[in-house]
Amino acid sequence: MKFLKTGFTREDLLRIDEKDLPVLAEEVRAVIVDTVKRNGGHLGSSLGAVELTIAMLRKFDPFNDRIIFDVGHQSYPYKILTDRFDRFQTLRQKDGISGFPRRNESPADHFNTGHSSTSISAALGYAKARDLLHEKRHVIAFIGDAALINGLAFEALNYVQETDTRLIIILNDNRHSISNRIGGFSTMLARLSANTLYRRTKNAIKRRAGVGFIKALEGVRDHVKNLVKPSHANMFDDIGINYWGPFDGHNIKNAEEVLELAKNYYRPVLLHFNTVKGKGLPEAEADPTKYHQVAPVGEAKARTWSEAASEIAEELARKDERIVCFTAAMATGVKLERFAKDFPHRFFDVGIAESHMLTMAAGLAAGGMRPWVFIYSTFLQRAMDQLMHDIALQNLPVVIMVDRAGLAGSDGDTHQGLLDVSWGRAVPNLEIYAPCDESSLRDAMIRASQHDGPTLIRYPRGHIPSGTISPEVSGAVVKIHDGSKWALLGNGASVQTMLDTRELAEREGADVPAVYDVRRVKPLDMSVLDGILRRYETVAVLEENYAAGGLGEAVGAVIAEGDYDTGLMRFGVPDVCVKHATQTEQREMYGLTPENIIARYKTHEAQRTAR
Amino acid sequence: MKFLKTGFTREDLLRIDEKDLPVLAEEVRAVIVDTVKRNGGHLGSSLGAVELTIAMLRKFDPFNDRIIFDVGHQSYPYKILTDRFDRFQTLRQKDGISGFPRRNESPADHFNTGHSSTSISAALGYAKARDLLHEKRHVIAFIGDAALINGLAFEALNYVQETDTRLIIILNDNRHSISNRIGGFSTMLARLSANTLYRRTKNAIKRRAGVGFIKALEGVRDHVKNLVKPSHANMFDDIGINYWGPFDGHNIKNAEEVLELAKNYYRPVLLHFNTVKGKGLPEAEADPTKYHQVAPVGEAKARTWSEAASEIAEELARKDERIVCFTAAMATGVKLERFAKDFPHRFFDVGIAESHMLTMAAGLAAGGMRPWVFIYSTFLQRAMDQLMHDIALQNLPVVIMVDRAGLAGSDGDTHQGLLDVSWGRAVPNLEIYAPCDESSLRDAMIRASQHDGPTLIRYPRGHIPSGTISPEVSGAVVKIHDGSKWALLGNGASVQTMLDTRELAEREGADVPAVYDVRRVKPLDMSVLDGILRRYETVAVLEENYAAGGLGEAVGAVIAEGDYDTGLMRFGVPDVCVKHATQTEQREMYGLTPENIIARYKTHEAQRTAR
Repeated sequence: MKFLKTGFTREDLLRIDEKDLPVLAEEVRAVIVDTVKRNGGHLGSSLGAVELTIAMLRKFDPFNDRIIFDVGHQSYPYKILTDRFDRFQTLRQKDGISGFPRRNESPADHFNTGHSSTSISAALGYAKARDLLHEKRHVIAFIGDAALINGLAFEALNYVQETDTRLIIILNDNRHSISNRIGGFSTMLARLSANTLYRRTKNAIKRRAGVGFIKALEGVRDHVKNLVKPSHANMFDDIGINYWGPFDGHNIKNAEEVLELAKNYYRPVLLHFNTVKGKGLPEAEADPTKYHQVAPVGEAKARTWSEAASEIAEELARKDERIVCFTAAMATGVKLERFAKDFPHRFFDVGIAESHMLTMAAGLAAGGMRPWVFIYSTFLQRAMDQLMHDIALQNLPVVIMVDRAGLAGSDGDTHQGLLDVSWGRAVPNLEIYAPCDESSLRDAMIRASQHDGPTLIRYPRGHIPSGTISPEVSGAVVKIHDGSKWALLGNGASVQTMLDTRELAEREGADVPAVYDVRRVKPLDMSVLDGILRRYETVAVLEENYAAGGLGEAVGAVIAEGDYDTGLMRFGVPDVCVKHATQTEQREMYGLTPENIIARYKTHEAQRTAR
Repeated sequence: MKFLKTGFTREDLLRIDEKDLPVLAEEVRAVIVDTVKRNGGHLGSSLGAVELTIAMLRKFDPFNDRIIFDVGHQSYPYKILTDRFDRFQTLRQKDGISGFPRRNESPADHFNTGHSSTSISAALGYAKARDLLHEKRHVIAFIGDAALINGLAFEALNYVQETDTRLIIILNDNRHSISNRIGGFSTMLARLSANTLYRRTKNAIKRRAGVGFIKALEGVRDHVKNLVKPSHANMFDDIGINYWGPFDGHNIKNAEEVLELAKNYYRPVLLHFNTVKGKGLPEAEADPTKYHQVAPVGEAKARTWSEAASEIAEELARKDERIVCFTAAMATGVKLERFAKDFPHRFFDVGIAESHMLTMAAGLAAGGMRPWVFIYSTFLQRAMDQLMHDIALQNLPVVIMVDRAGLAGSDGDTHQGLLDVSWGRAVPNLEIYAPCDESSLRDAMIRASQHDGPTLIRYPRGHIPSGTISPEVSGAVVKIHDGSKWALLGNGASVQTMLDTRELAEREGADVPAVYDVRRVKPLDMSVLDGILRRYETVAVLEENYAAGGLGEAVGAVIAEGDYDTGLMRFGVPDVCVKHATQTEQREMYGLTPENIIARYKTHEAQRTAR
């Protein structure tokens, strides 16, 4: 590498000659491709944002100005160029560089992200804080076109003109959502992109250069407006945001010029740059969906939970014409591509619009259909009111397929699926299942398809057990093994941990626990639970969910309220933010391992007998 | 009344002569004003929607077509005219007519609402269900201008063009949010309203009447487009939705003509009607904010929780310049009008945009400020991901002031505040307080103002106790009374219930319970709790929250996991949808009364001693 060497800092970036910047860009790309191949991560968006990031970092001071990346998929070049090159190879590893902006990682990261469409709201907050504290800094929201169609971003855009503050919004338009771009708004962006305003804009600036900079900019604005034909009018102008563009987001020199103009402009402005997702990596440019996020080279290709869930949904859909499936820009992640092909009229990809997805599903259910919504646990957080207000209160038969539930690995704290059980348990009418293998998954899905109310089915990230680990029966609580003195209760990914715990106990000669698969978290089967609590001295509840509001508390309340002497041990995630690491490492961090469970049981048992 | 007589049905409406409809409109208004004066309710929006509703009900069949009201504030005329006139005087009373659309109330109500901005998503769902089931019906979303700026509505608008279906969106533009209209989008609507297109549109239709109806409509569309000057371009056209308007929403005849056109049009269309909020009631027209929702005449005017909370916020803001306050269109409800006047630069009304509000607050906090967000418990459901992802994971010092927490009375199941504790307890870093009087409210707010992380403070709807009912000390759990054998644990509105329970026990000669004010729900003060659990044989936990995930479960888990013999009784809201009734009636329904608590305790105690 000519420029990217050990110890590279943003100061070094400022010293590079303009003409050498394309070389630097290629070096940044090489580092990203190489690291993501080894560690996995988000590839396409970052490759497309290299030149824009270089231009931005030369025109703005990342340590004083506030650059806020939306989602953060596209922040790898920024990380490399803000003094983190040396650590970048630890991307997404435990104690390494996060795959998303993190304030505790660098003073150049100003707002943690992971979910989409927060950047404009956060930037407005930073801008008002700057005004009120009389500080001098620029505030920049860097947002992709897919994130812009989410309601949160719209609420922020709508509010911009009320704030009476300066703000620069950089729209990195790569014409792709994670899968494809959705909706009328995208069409509008496409229409805007068809213009070639940049040259005309620049000429207009030049012509007015003599009349003072601000005046010149005003002139540009009017000029741009006049150039835009009525059919090219756009929403930004409609709602009072200055729109400049479109510009070529891979031309560093031009991008720097535009940013310089925006820097000196006195009103909120949106700069529209066109970029190519996956830029510089031919296979990624050709198939941006596939290269949005990639797994580390060599990762096993076994069957995943998502594959199993979508295949069973297909089976059910063949038998029941009322079944339709939804995704919010995650058809690849939740494996609905084949469903989309086989049932084009019964498949809806709404883009990154989780709230709308659930309410539209409610409408379909009210209209006589059976909608299935496939969504990551962490993104369901975006639609909890829609689950409550639109689905549960009307007791509508919508099935929420909650993918990536539980400890979710290296995407970090913003992507863990640890709230769906606690939040879902409080929602009236909602039934909750957490299957542990394909047979219990199928059973839960069949039950959901026949249930005249809402059902939530949560399943883990990653590979589904290749065989059957829990009896192939239909049930709410299923006994896997008898035991002596104590019983393990859990579901989902915890079932394997329970089985391993039992095996370890046998090997160690410790008390061998019974194992119960509590597949249906809500409502609890109280009669089976009663039997367990009467039979065993101690129950240990395992869950990949925050302990607060989880299954363990539910069981605890039953014990405390009832006529039981049973002791309780709970294994779940405490009141912390779960950092990026592998799922295995995360389970170790929170004691969800056979070794820890047996060790804690022994202590518990010793205390119990001592009383 | 000439037309509105006992037994009035929609069939009668169809028989009324066109020229008599204004008389009917006045009669509908009189019924609404009279009923709301007695029962309380939402006045202004319904008065403004009378003529549009009449026109809609003459052009569409409410029992076959799907008319979906957004929010539902404006659905009173619809209720009166769809065979519910006879029951309308029971509005908002227990077992009476709901203040919002309810499917179980009438076959003319197709989607339950209460929260804003769901109608377009729900209508798209209904429209797709119609297409897939090969049914014949029209689907209409009836939405106000304020609801249109919420992100959910935008996500739906953006998705319209993807759905390839027919849909009629009626925009009832009364130029008012609950307080005032916010944002660039509103400016755009105002600009559109400044046009007087209706006459020109109509003439254009007439001129083209000879060339076939659809052609004529196409012509209208082009004509309208040509008439709209570039500065009047609008977002709807940008994102591929046919925009027609603006029209006068109080001219029934014209409205019927427009609806007839839309009914026969083959593409999604948005009809923009201008109306006057509070129409026909001079005082409501003059002060639409005040008359948005009114209390029953004669309701006591004692100090409310909202007043106390906003006054304390003012006090704190005078001392700490970093404090800023937020509301989402609820300045009147949460009583922030004076704060807004005294601190105009430190007050933000973002409109109905709860998600944006929390993320912008996070941005301000990250930028060094201390934002306080005032929000109803039920609307916080709209921003849970923002609380988790943007505030809690970054441990930012944002204070969430949760108004109307607990049983909330006659607005019904969509407006109860029963989830904030269960959902909030699972959120890492978040502290939760539930004060019971002004002194504990002040204490919680002072603690929150000094806490370097997020705090949620929940308080009930209605009047704050006039004096001090819990000791004036700072604490997490505060003992109010000692007792024998059993202890009552609770907070917020339950503290008065606990005190009344104790008094009743004294009067009845039953075991007199200790009373503990568990002001801080999270984190629990484990050492105080330990003392209570060791000292008393039984603890009864009271909460105005869903029992699942609530304080009772938390205490239950502590008991079951620890070395305690303490019995537990829980009093909270079970897994049900809470229907409209007074708060007192609701407390009775769920056993949150001294009589029930003592009765259950006696049974519990008898069983305990029998063992």
